[in-house]
Amino acid sequence: MTKPTDLTLYTASVPNGIKVSSALEYLEIPYKMRALDFSTLEQKEPWYLEINPNGRVPAIVDVVDGKKTSVMESGAVLLYITDKYDPANKLSYPHGSAEYYEMIEWLFWQVGGLGPMQGQASHFVRYCQSDNPEVQAYGTNRYVNETRRLMSVLETRLHKQAAKGSKYLVGDHLSVADLACLGWVLFDTYVGIESSEFPLLNKWQDEISAIPLVKKGLDVPKPFTIKEMVKNPEAMAAASATGRNWIQKGNEAEKK
Amino acid sequence: MTKPTDLTLYTASVPNGIKVSSALEYLEIPYKMRALDFSTLEQKEPWYLEINPNGRVPAIVDVVDGKKTSVMESGAVLLYITDKYDPANKLSYPHGSAEYYEMIEWLFWQVGGLGPMQGQASHFVRYCQSDNPEVQAYGTNRYVNETRRLMSVLETRLHKQAAKGSKYLVGDHLSVADLACLGWVLFDTYVGIESSEFPLLNKWQDEISAIPLVKKGLDVPKPFTIKEMVKNPEAMAAASATGRNWIQKGNEAEKK
Repeated sequence: MTKPTDLTLYTASVPNGIKVSSALEYLEIPYKMRALDFSTLEQKEPWYLEINPNGRVPAIVDVVDGKKTSVMESGAVLLYITDKYDPANKLSYPHGSAEYYEMIEWLFWQVGGLGPMQGQASHFVRYCQSDNPEVQAYGTNRYVNETRRLMSVLETRLHKQAAKGSKYLVGDHLSVADLACLGWVLFDTYVGIESSEFPLLNKWQDEISAIPLVKKGLDVPKPFTIKEMVKNPEAMAAASATGRNWIQKGNEAEKK
Repeated sequence: MTKPTDLTLYTASVPNGIKVSSALEYLEIPYKMRALDFSTLEQKEPWYLEINPNGRVPAIVDVVDGKKTSVMESGAVLLYITDKYDPANKLSYPHGSAEYYEMIEWLFWQVGGLGPMQGQASHFVRYCQSDNPEVQAYGTNRYVNETRRLMSVLETRLHKQAAKGSKYLVGDHLSVADLACLGWVLFDTYVGIESSEFPLLNKWQDEISAIPLVKKGLDVPKPFTIKEMVKNPEAMAAASATGRNWIQKGNEAEKK
């Protein structure tokens, strides 16, 4: 198998970041890791905007035969990685196959639905910058309900797959569709959704995140501790305050 | 070129729908069109959930040699269509090429960013269901600002492309990356963003939407009249009331 010799992942310990690091680790792809420091708005620095003009993580830069390719957007990065470095389809399905289109359906579903909606739920549950309780209540209600609906769509999908003898979202083995959704589902309790609400999804997230190579990727750049942290109100309050502060700084920088 | 003989598009006159109909028309792909009636929650009926378990538009069903493939999520549908029915790369780039990854970068960027954020802007500007003005103000401020930031990212991209002699988001010709973004950018004034704020983006949307085959697709299932409608406060108030009513019905149905 061709392996990259000079691939760099720009990331942070956030759902979209761990989607990519878990895929790289699972495929045992050698890569350099560069954690971005949100507290200094590193993701908005000109050198990084050259790589990702949207100023978000993750992104990769892959240098092949002296030619540099940068890819932004976690969904695009996952397809790039599997196209280029997963010829045995350990974490994907052959381009053009029926399973390939199911894989990209669920990948786009996560990127366009679960990710942004759960992201908004996080905002209103954890980082809302209004002192008006009705503002937080409206947003929390809207986005946590939608996240719950989306997780119920995953639960139904896993039921259908179980009836076919599969434990995975697509086909008969783990794919980037699973890892993309996992990155967000692991943050379920962070937005107040109990893992026990969706039994199959709960089993699915436990089993996949326990796979040693996946687990290794979830711990990039920092150990994945969100499930424990959510149970500690003081730690959560501190983390939310830090998050609010970064968001405020980011908003102000973007207005300029 | 192989053309489909039995492809059905399930759609509505919404940004994600016209992304796909404009691509089908541009490629002169024969298809049957089935408009879904949101007023009766047709998108939640069991027969449609078999096609799209997420209960949203658009989706396609393509029958090839008696074998049925359904694809949900506009981003996945656009890749399916170009993979299968655009071998000359009239609206795409060859799979695996540098331009291909740029195309999917911008496709995922639209699906994960511009679409959901502008969708939330629409909610707070047009359909917010709170009587508390602070709720609407917080959401409008948050999502219209983010939509404006995202459109500024497109404006910057078009500047970079112009420096290379291209009028398009990727490479040297129109691609699904452009049509995906166009579906949303055309609704700019609907969320209170003036087309004149982004001169290159404005020129880009005018030119692309004037291409006869693209225009034909924008008029599916109903003529595209949003730009005129936004200028008519009475028509807008009526449309917003209808939208709020559908959303309410949908939310209630989803809670069950």
